[in-house]
Amino acid sequence: MNRVKIIGVGTHLPGPQIDNEKIQEKFSVNAEWVELMIGNRFRHLVVDLDTGAINASLADICTDAALAALDRAYTDADEIEFIVMGTATPDQLMPATVNMVAQKLGINGVSTYQLQSGCAGAIQALDLGHKLIKTGTFHKGLVIGGDICAKYIDLKQDYSDLDPAELVNYALFGDGAGAAVLSADDGVEGIEILHTLNRCEGLNREPGQELNWRGSFVDDDAPQPLKEGYQAIEANVPDMALETMNELIAKAGWKLEEITHFMTPQLAGNMTDKIITHMGIAPEKALNCVADTGNNGNGLPFLQLQMLQDKAQPGDTAITVAIESSKWIKGGLVLQAG
Amino acid sequence: MNRVKIIGVGTHLPGPQIDNEKIQEKFSVNAEWVELMIGNRFRHLVVDLDTGAINASLADICTDAALAALDRAYTDADEIEFIVMGTATPDQLMPATVNMVAQKLGINGVSTYQLQSGCAGAIQALDLGHKLIKTGTFHKGLVIGGDICAKYIDLKQDYSDLDPAELVNYALFGDGAGAAVLSADDGVEGIEILHTLNRCEGLNREPGQELNWRGSFVDDDAPQPLKEGYQAIEANVPDMALETMNELIAKAGWKLEEITHFMTPQLAGNMTDKIITHMGIAPEKALNCVADTGNNGNGLPFLQLQMLQDKAQPGDTAITVAIESSKWIKGGLVLQAG
Repeated sequence: MNRVKIIGVGTHLPGPQIDNEKIQEKFSVNAEWVELMIGNRFRHLVVDLDTGAINASLADICTDAALAALDRAYTDADEIEFIVMGTATPDQLMPATVNMVAQKLGINGVSTYQLQSGCAGAIQALDLGHKLIKTGTFHKGLVIGGDICAKYIDLKQDYSDLDPAELVNYALFGDGAGAAVLSADDGVEGIEILHTLNRCEGLNREPGQELNWRGSFVDDDAPQPLKEGYQAIEANVPDMALETMNELIAKAGWKLEEITHFMTPQLAGNMTDKIITHMGIAPEKALNCVADTGNNGNGLPFLQLQMLQDKAQPGDTAITVAIESSKWIKGGLVLQAG
Repeated sequence: MNRVKIIGVGTHLPGPQIDNEKIQEKFSVNAEWVELMIGNRFRHLVVDLDTGAINASLADICTDAALAALDRAYTDADEIEFIVMGTATPDQLMPATVNMVAQKLGINGVSTYQLQSGCAGAIQALDLGHKLIKTGTFHKGLVIGGDICAKYIDLKQDYSDLDPAELVNYALFGDGAGAAVLSADDGVEGIEILHTLNRCEGLNREPGQELNWRGSFVDDDAPQPLKEGYQAIEANVPDMALETMNELIAKAGWKLEEITHFMTPQLAGNMTDKIITHMGIAPEKALNCVADTGNNGNGLPFLQLQMLQDKAQPGDTAITVAIESSKWIKGGLVLQAG
């Protein structure tokens, strides 16, 4: 079995930082309330909120992230033997966006896999990339995650009519992408993936998050586009995160105090703080970004991995936990810098 | 490395057979022309064309297919260690449909992966399932594929205005699902997967097939829902199918005449016949169904595998080839019954 290392992480956040005042102006949600109750200060979007122009596709921002990861990994695109991508919001249903990213990177003739996934998707993609190398199938590959919410932002809509519970979404989410180059360990420097976890535990539990799409027409009976069960999320995610961390620590044979860095689920700034407290993690050991980046779904864990890449010293240990509330998926990684 | 066998295949086609007369009545496309020029006689749909009622979700038909596969494999749902599913048309963007299938099957606490994919998706899913067992990660799992086109059938639309090139789609496509139980070989009877192929060869080639989705509103600038480049498909798929077959045969170290059964790409009845001729396959060795089932995307290769399961004698050899024209993916399997 190969040892597998993350040898380069890159990310891309499109356009300028969008502050809460801008969110208030466009979506009728109070800026101070967002800061206090949600805890997010900024986010990025591919859509220009003033003009409505869409400035990038998911394939574009994933390509930018992948180029940054390749650069950091001193790896040429033609060394890549597979691409795994996770997203909830592909540009099209066909072709899979991963193949349009391959086009933009000039990569041809490799296996590609695009996972339909939410908040645990980046971990699922890294888990799969890890397996593909671990087992000797491939030597080096690219794992990508990203999401954009442009198809759910209608600037012609009058948001002053909307239920505050729905408006919260515009304060929470943002667009972004990340990527990592994974390699069999040939003595290269990087962050070793020691263990992965990807497990759906949704049996007989209502989905906590639903995202619906439409085809060629508007069906009057169509379910609402986005349903967030914030109460179910608040009630379940902290415990599931703690369970997942404990399981990963046990797998690694480590003690909590031996772990240098923690990457926790990050729905929003305030909830992330609560989760960190609930997990018993010293705040200074947590790698957090959501308050300044927004929740960009499959992109977010790569933003955390990039913080780890910048911060980790050889020998440092790290645990990543992601919880997908859609159908209650536990995802996680055990990592060690070396 | 484990040997991997398909130990049970099951499929599900929703509702009654829908004939060309019905297609003519509802979509203003001439029934005789469909039979002559397309070569399809029947298809199945989850939507009742008379009432507009949607009688099943993708999760429903995939569950029915999975139950049939489990039954054929003498396998209980609780023996399943992973689920891989391929589809172009998930019920929702979140949760992934694979997790709703797990719910319906009573499966909990396993790894699930849902691939966003088109005509090569079933092969990608089988390739991934094969790798997960081959490499010892898992012992037994479920691979599923299916598609439904209900979100693209608007029964309130006046189809008499539509361009015939677009109407063709209503004659080509149908709904359906299939599933296979894959197992490490413990001397069980089944169809061994000897080799898999999953490779995107789309660099600098225009997509031959595009399927677009909408979010919460109708964007005036949105691209058309479905774009099929039939000329590009006709020009490229037969050659790509032949190349893929030759590559698989070379991998297996076999000769063309040593192969007992062939499963070829099946866009529609007439084109399948052309592809078989182009590939140099004796028609009686081809396992075909599209003329009677319609093209149901990620479901179709499982319909072929079910024909193989019913027909194959111990020692029989088989080649599966699938070509996805979206961004030009070659997919294939080398199989041997034993």
